Amino acid sequence: MLKNDLYLKALAGDPVPRPPVWMMRQAGRYLPSYLRLQEKYDFFTRCETPELVAEITCLPIDEIGPDAAILFSDILVVPRALGQPVEMKSGVGPVLDNPIRTPQQAMAMRPVDASQALGYVMDGIRATSERLDNRVPLIGFSGAPWTLLCYMVEGRGSKDFSTAKAFCYQHPEAAKHVLKLLTDVIIDYLNAQIEAGVHAVQVFDSWAGLLGPEDFSSFCLPYLQRITEEVRGAPVVLFAKGAWYALELLSWRTRAAALSLDWTVTPEYARQAAGLDITLQGNFDPSKLLAPVGAIRQQVRQMIDRFGKDRYIVNLGHGILPNVPVAHARAFVDEVRGWSK
Amino acid sequence: MLKNDLYLKALAGDPVPRPPVWMMRQAGRYLPSYLRLQEKYDFFTRCETPELVAEITCLPIDEIGPDAAILFSDILVVPRALGQPVEMKSGVGPVLDNPIRTPQQAMAMRPVDASQALGYVMDGIRATSERLDNRVPLIGFSGAPWTLLCYMVEGRGSKDFSTAKAFCYQHPEAAKHVLKLLTDVIIDYLNAQIEAGVHAVQVFDSWAGLLGPEDFSSFCLPYLQRITEEVRGAPVVLFAKGAWYALELLSWRTRAAALSLDWTVTPEYARQAAGLDITLQGNFDPSKLLAPVGAIRQQVRQMIDRFGKDRYIVNLGHGILPNVPVAHARAFVDEVRGWSK
Repeated sequence: MLKNDLYLKALAGDPVPRPPVWMMRQAGRYLPSYLRLQEKYDFFTRCETPELVAEITCLPIDEIGPDAAILFSDILVVPRALGQPVEMKSGVGPVLDNPIRTPQQAMAMRPVDASQALGYVMDGIRATSERLDNRVPLIGFSGAPWTLLCYMVEGRGSKDFSTAKAFCYQHPEAAKHVLKLLTDVIIDYLNAQIEAGVHAVQVFDSWAGLLGPEDFSSFCLPYLQRITEEVRGAPVVLFAKGAWYALELLSWRTRAAALSLDWTVTPEYARQAAGLDITLQGNFDPSKLLAPVGAIRQQVRQMIDRFGKDRYIVNLGHGILPNVPVAHARAFVDEVRGWSK
Repeated sequence: MLKNDLYLKALAGDPVPRPPVWMMRQAGRYLPSYLRLQEKYDFFTRCETPELVAEITCLPIDEIGPDAAILFSDILVVPRALGQPVEMKSGVGPVLDNPIRTPQQAMAMRPVDASQALGYVMDGIRATSERLDNRVPLIGFSGAPWTLLCYMVEGRGSKDFSTAKAFCYQHPEAAKHVLKLLTDVIIDYLNAQIEAGVHAVQVFDSWAGLLGPEDFSSFCLPYLQRITEEVRGAPVVLFAKGAWYALELLSWRTRAAALSLDWTVTPEYARQAAGLDITLQGNFDPSKLLAPVGAIRQQVRQMIDRFGKDRYIVNLGHGILPNVPVAHARAFVDEVRGWSK
């Protein structure tokens, strides 16, 4: 039914003629067509309007040509659904009302029915599926419990999220109440996305790497495990950015179909840690898309040679930067599409 | 001559009854006595006035009791000496005039005589030595070439220093001209510090971890190698924050006496990568100093048990946070001082 199922084949471990490619934040600010929509509609209007979600999600499919689409949305829709309004402040990033600063606030949190509270995301998925018309698979996603807790406690982006970490160290039971509640909501949310039509889901634990290995095992791993066990009907990809030390645990102790990697990890290290029975995704340094096109193409080839064509999805090691020239993003994708052994 | 030489013994690999302890940024904003001086004198006045350098450097020695003092200064004194004025903007951090944005600007850079241009640092060292009166060793320091280039090109702090990285990818020859020039200046600067009386020097490559392993080998390693080879008369400690993948290279391909570690690295991983003939320093998560005192003390004991008492210096994995209660910093240091097998 799908015209291009390379991405799903790579997740399943089926042999492919070449690895699939997509880019985190591929429907983002580096695209002039996205910037035009950004001028007309504010951030959450773009996330909540199914026609806009469909239009934005498909922009890179039409203009750049990756092998998968990722739903246009944001990880902070979940805290918003849980009663923390989020404002996108230009030059600052997201700012959340009512950050959780006391154990009482944490314990008072109550779950929501994600399929209802985030129904607009499912509407966006249906509108996108129609517009995609089976050209490529559609990826759904959520923030991971730890990363969402970081924002919900800190109240905004931070280089070290030390307020959020201090909260966890001072009130571990309250923190774990929030993490468990988030896990429940995320599982329902991802299952609803799958029911609405996404072909795979990715869980972004963008701030995992702020934790050392022991804290990762306390505050990330158990919740990621449950998500991979209780999300059904589609493969789950985990991206624990910065948590190089946890690749082995994530591979062997979760049911993830794939691990997404940042660029500090060599292909050889990742494969050795994760073993042979899991797909790896990544991990081109996003800043390297600012290099000359010839260098990009050469390094993409080397990356594929080192990861190997099977059980591998070409991607960046983090989201594409807003100042990347479109021609460079296109060269990155083109080089993969033209790859042959 | 030194009343407490635990730190130097640990660097030399000599057996010690307990490991030494100090904290990165121990003379910093968490100390009320520092904040009072901060109110009276601006940042570079504090760095440039030998009496203030001596007073600030000794504050934690008097109030907290670590086994080494680290000179109060800043890594950005080097770009300043090279002709890039630096302004410390409250809420923003350092902002550098005339960031390097073209290969022409880079190639036009000329070295300075560090011992002359940074003579005030050497005066500060002499004043501090007098005030310390051989109670504990004095550590000198410099930013590493890569980390200084990051600031000199980006012009300010950044979460990804993508402008600086892009400059290196687009103009590798010009970048390497700046890195080599910085290396020459840093070697002279550290040798002058040693001549003025510091007992050891630490090189802070705070942004090493923004690079992947190949780029680390291009833009960091060769310069760190030269520094460890050409700085004479005192041990050199390297702190390549975030570059977990490079511990083996840093241990075996440089002449560093010690490697400082961030908190994503387990003691076991670090020791295996670095081997037995090098001292390890670190790596308590700075956010954990916000945990209750009992938890801090327990985790410090566990950390020492795992690293072992010899060839080990207790420290944080990065600078102490400004909001750490003084009593917590004191508990961290006390627990090490009271440690016995």
